[in-house]
Amino acid sequence: MNILITGGAGFVGTRLARTLLQRGSLDGRAIARIVLADQAPAQADLLADSRVEARVGPLLAQCEGLRDEAFDGVFHLASAVSGECEADFDLGLRSNLDSTRALLDALRHRASLPGSTGAPATKLVFSSSVAVFGPDAAVPMPPIVTDTTLPTPQTSYGSHKHICEHLVADYSRKGYIDGRSARLMTVTVRPGRPNGAASSFFSGIIREPLAGLESVCPVGLEVAHPVSSPQRTVEGLIAVYEASRQAYGGRTALNLPALNVTVAQMLDALEAVAGPAVRARVRFDRDERIAAIVANWPTGARADRAAALGLQPEANFADIIRQYIADSGATPGALKGLA
Amino acid sequence: MNILITGGAGFVGTRLARTLLQRGSLDGRAIARIVLADQAPAQADLLADSRVEARVGPLLAQCEGLRDEAFDGVFHLASAVSGECEADFDLGLRSNLDSTRALLDALRHRASLPGSTGAPATKLVFSSSVAVFGPDAAVPMPPIVTDTTLPTPQTSYGSHKHICEHLVADYSRKGYIDGRSARLMTVTVRPGRPNGAASSFFSGIIREPLAGLESVCPVGLEVAHPVSSPQRTVEGLIAVYEASRQAYGGRTALNLPALNVTVAQMLDALEAVAGPAVRARVRFDRDERIAAIVANWPTGARADRAAALGLQPEANFADIIRQYIADSGATPGALKGLA
Repeated sequence: MNILITGGAGFVGTRLARTLLQRGSLDGRAIARIVLADQAPAQADLLADSRVEARVGPLLAQCEGLRDEAFDGVFHLASAVSGECEADFDLGLRSNLDSTRALLDALRHRASLPGSTGAPATKLVFSSSVAVFGPDAAVPMPPIVTDTTLPTPQTSYGSHKHICEHLVADYSRKGYIDGRSARLMTVTVRPGRPNGAASSFFSGIIREPLAGLESVCPVGLEVAHPVSSPQRTVEGLIAVYEASRQAYGGRTALNLPALNVTVAQMLDALEAVAGPAVRARVRFDRDERIAAIVANWPTGARADRAAALGLQPEANFADIIRQYIADSGATPGALKGLA
Repeated sequence: MNILITGGAGFVGTRLARTLLQRGSLDGRAIARIVLADQAPAQADLLADSRVEARVGPLLAQCEGLRDEAFDGVFHLASAVSGECEADFDLGLRSNLDSTRALLDALRHRASLPGSTGAPATKLVFSSSVAVFGPDAAVPMPPIVTDTTLPTPQTSYGSHKHICEHLVADYSRKGYIDGRSARLMTVTVRPGRPNGAASSFFSGIIREPLAGLESVCPVGLEVAHPVSSPQRTVEGLIAVYEASRQAYGGRTALNLPALNVTVAQMLDALEAVAGPAVRARVRFDRDERIAAIVANWPTGARADRAAALGLQPEANFADIIRQYIADSGATPGALKGLA
């Protein structure tokens, strides 16, 4: 089978590609090819796999070329992040809305090709976000958002994600694709450098101290938020892909599992895993712009439909930190040694 | 003040324009000009008013020209209807989604012009629809939908309306417009001929019998639906326009008032107003395509936020029929005489 991963050079996309290549199959079928579409070049280990093809460039420009290709499955992860969308309204619309529409139209075009008669529609998993939720004066946000909470997004990013959920649902209703939308919780701990996402600090306050660097936390200890590890997130995307339509249930987006934690709990876990000197590298310096965005995010999430698919959140945040340490190739001892 | 009405030659748009011209003011300011943008030519009585300017052509093509114009207020009513969108997916996307986006971008462009510094953003009322609601396997629809019911649209039309609600909300959040979305109930009794809307029969089963013609009802007597008269609908749009941001509350779409009626109650009212011979002109011939669409619509609606703005539904359906008879210039007696 042929698979397309948009945003395939990103953090989640890279991990998803590695996981799929290691499994060798998806939905019970052998994976013959994975196309990684991204603005950035794919990781070297992925390029070294003969099943992988990387395409570098904006997704919007790539979609025209996708019209006559037969992908069995698509993971649509490409997205401008929240901070970028707030800073550049047009970029957000183009990267998130126009690109998704063009991708769906390309897949729909394929469904209309003569050779595809009787072939199942391309399966697509759209990575939506917990950022679809927010408090609106007319509709207060519950402390814990569920699959049936009314999304009233308070950022362009969240608006685009929610709009795309509805596009995916309607293209699926018409049979042009077999689409499912899964709302990712904030993925942490991300490796690498801080990015433009307002949620970037949820990784930074763990990653930087473990690497011996100071990290600035732009919000208070009391801030609570639903998070998930990279591995659980990737497992969630694959499970949503492999679910039958009936098991997925309807066409409305679902929440992926969330571990609901406060910044204080994250730092307590950091201290438990890596010691007080590591924790001490986190400095608090309130950033009003970030704090205002985060204040409009849910403080926790519940994922009943995902649970029915067998998906569970991590048991605690220390496990997430240990996963990051294991992934980064260092030992906790070595990281502690940096302290 | 300058006002733009998209869909200004349509039924609701025409009535809105007449009402505004008669009032002479909106939001406490004198109306200097009303531009009616529509694919069809405007009504002669409107064109005869020196304050009215009609522009005929697709809205999408007109939006580029709107970028440098200063409208104080916009009523965005133009839309492809539900039946059209189901029959032609591209037409629906173009007419409802692309046109709304182009309109919002035109208004946003105006907000960025040098002369507009400090001027209030253009006020916009978007006519959304009760069709945003529908039953999804994952999210059963309540019998009575409210302002906070999760929309899971089951038609392209409903999907587009809901997507545009979120575009209007996000452009408003950024300050590019001062937008409000009001969900219209099914407007009845519409004059003229049946149109492509799946809801067309909600007018036809009253209008045709009153005109001495047979009418076919494609669904059963038990079908229940939230409706509103043309006059109450127009009053609702104006009230939502004139509401302060605080009174409107947040940026989430609100329901306009609904009279929840069954087909049986509609026909009982027809008989009460016009006699049994008129009612007898309604023949039942189930249309599975229409019935399937209607089965996914709410059976009733509540409009708490609209009520807080002072808006109420009609007391009963006979009043709606009497309004139609009064509007059509005939007397109930004369119409009865046709029986």
